[in-house]
Amino acid sequence: MLRFRCIQLFTSPFEAPFIQSFKPHTSISCAQMGSYSTTSSSAQNSPKLVFRQLFEKESSTYTYLLADASHPQKPALLIDPVDKTADRDLALVKELGLKLIYAINTHVHADHVTGSGLIKFSISQTKFPGVKSIISKASNAKADLFVEPGDKIYFGDIFLEVHATPGHTLGCVTYVTGDGPNQPQPRMAFTGDALLIRGCGRTDFQGGSSDKLYDSVHSQIFTLPKDTLLYPAHDYKGFTVSTVGEEMLYNPRLSKDKETFKNIMQNLNLSYPKMMDVAVPANMVCGLQETKSEAC
Amino acid sequence: MLRFRCIQLFTSPFEAPFIQSFKPHTSISCAQMGSYSTTSSSAQNSPKLVFRQLFEKESSTYTYLLADASHPQKPALLIDPVDKTADRDLALVKELGLKLIYAINTHVHADHVTGSGLIKFSISQTKFPGVKSIISKASNAKADLFVEPGDKIYFGDIFLEVHATPGHTLGCVTYVTGDGPNQPQPRMAFTGDALLIRGCGRTDFQGGSSDKLYDSVHSQIFTLPKDTLLYPAHDYKGFTVSTVGEEMLYNPRLSKDKETFKNIMQNLNLSYPKMMDVAVPANMVCGLQETKSEAC
Repeated sequence: MLRFRCIQLFTSPFEAPFIQSFKPHTSISCAQMGSYSTTSSSAQNSPKLVFRQLFEKESSTYTYLLADASHPQKPALLIDPVDKTADRDLALVKELGLKLIYAINTHVHADHVTGSGLIKFSISQTKFPGVKSIISKASNAKADLFVEPGDKIYFGDIFLEVHATPGHTLGCVTYVTGDGPNQPQPRMAFTGDALLIRGCGRTDFQGGSSDKLYDSVHSQIFTLPKDTLLYPAHDYKGFTVSTVGEEMLYNPRLSKDKETFKNIMQNLNLSYPKMMDVAVPANMVCGLQETKSEAC
Repeated sequence: MLRFRCIQLFTSPFEAPFIQSFKPHTSISCAQMGSYSTTSSSAQNSPKLVFRQLFEKESSTYTYLLADASHPQKPALLIDPVDKTADRDLALVKELGLKLIYAINTHVHADHVTGSGLIKFSISQTKFPGVKSIISKASNAKADLFVEPGDKIYFGDIFLEVHATPGHTLGCVTYVTGDGPNQPQPRMAFTGDALLIRGCGRTDFQGGSSDKLYDSVHSQIFTLPKDTLLYPAHDYKGFTVSTVGEEMLYNPRLSKDKETFKNIMQNLNLSYPKMMDVAVPANMVCGLQETKSEAC
């Protein structure tokens, strides 16, 4: 359990104790999660982030589990779950005593089937139903909640900010932990396929654009503090994390000027993604069969 | 770059500014690493741990890079490097501006060839030669330095304690970050194959003993604080980290009583390790050919 302890006084980001429903450009909160403390006299009451990085070997996909362990109900979310490892992730959530409230995707994946739908169905069979799927509005995929740039996704007293980072797909977003004394330090950015460690996602399908991707990364990720931890959706060389400062210096594509980057991306000569024709249609509907897609 | 910032005043663990040579049951320090600050008036001068978990997919091995980023020379060490990913690890060390001083093994591995020897040869060709290989004395393998239970391995102002955890092999050790206000919190334990996440290493070769392994884990690992982060040498299901508290509850083998554990281990019916006849002889001499083994 990797904990980021906060040493400053906690102040609730809300005037009201609950935000029951999601509103674009406001905040997502975990409904019925109990009251928010408005002040705390010790670090013990500050939010404590539970963080787990999980790997799916076949597609080299990272799934991330985040939770606020100091909140009475330990609300948790999964970023980019995979169908094949959904059972593993749910077992871990249970063992850690967390309450899963969101299954979030950074984008419509083309290389694996999302676990969002399976997780929703599994959770609905338990005594704690109610997990909501989240994806960007720009993705045009099905989900319970849609996010737009500037939205905040709260789980307990910790939140993720939504940054639009199109270019790999038209609807890609990066989720960034909040700035502030009661939020994890250093900040953490879940970049999906927009920025990989020493690489980036391809830009030749799904509304991809090397021009857009370059602008996305430079305006939304490289402007974050240099010690921001970068957690991508994939890694193929065994890296688990990088930082903004490192990628600005050593990313062999995105550290270059825009024209060089576009030229690199135009000449990758990659083969057609083998899972694409299965994964993309499935991921437009939470990874479920069409017959069940109304449950997204 | 995952940083554990310390909020208390820093005090050097040494009376003398350097510990130049390794002495069993004392401390390993990074020789010629510059002077140690004895006091600091702000958290900025406290040790900052750089930590990277790295994965070798074929043998599902984790290599760990640790460094003291706040020390002038940024001394670093690698735990359980793999020969196939030695170049990746060295490139990362260079990019992060670290000075690699130790290549450490938890034990003589049977499933992959250690990268210690390759790393030593590569480093010796650079302008910063001098990396030392470390393994337990009980392993009977070759290395530059041998550790015994109770030893401390310093890199900058951060240190690892050596805990004997035999049972998978006779010479297995677990490296645990130090206890104290200027050391990483929560503590971190690099358990090798003694304790895996929801599992453990086999006990039927290399002086293995289920009786010893049970005692090792219960006396040396399960007695650590429950929030101690556990980093194993392998994972086959995509987990990256666990905690002492979790494994005490959910490890399907080691959470049982001793007789049940021994019975489980006696009935695993595992096949002969396919890399064993290559890896073990190589790893007795730093993973190098016999002709070069004098350089271990």
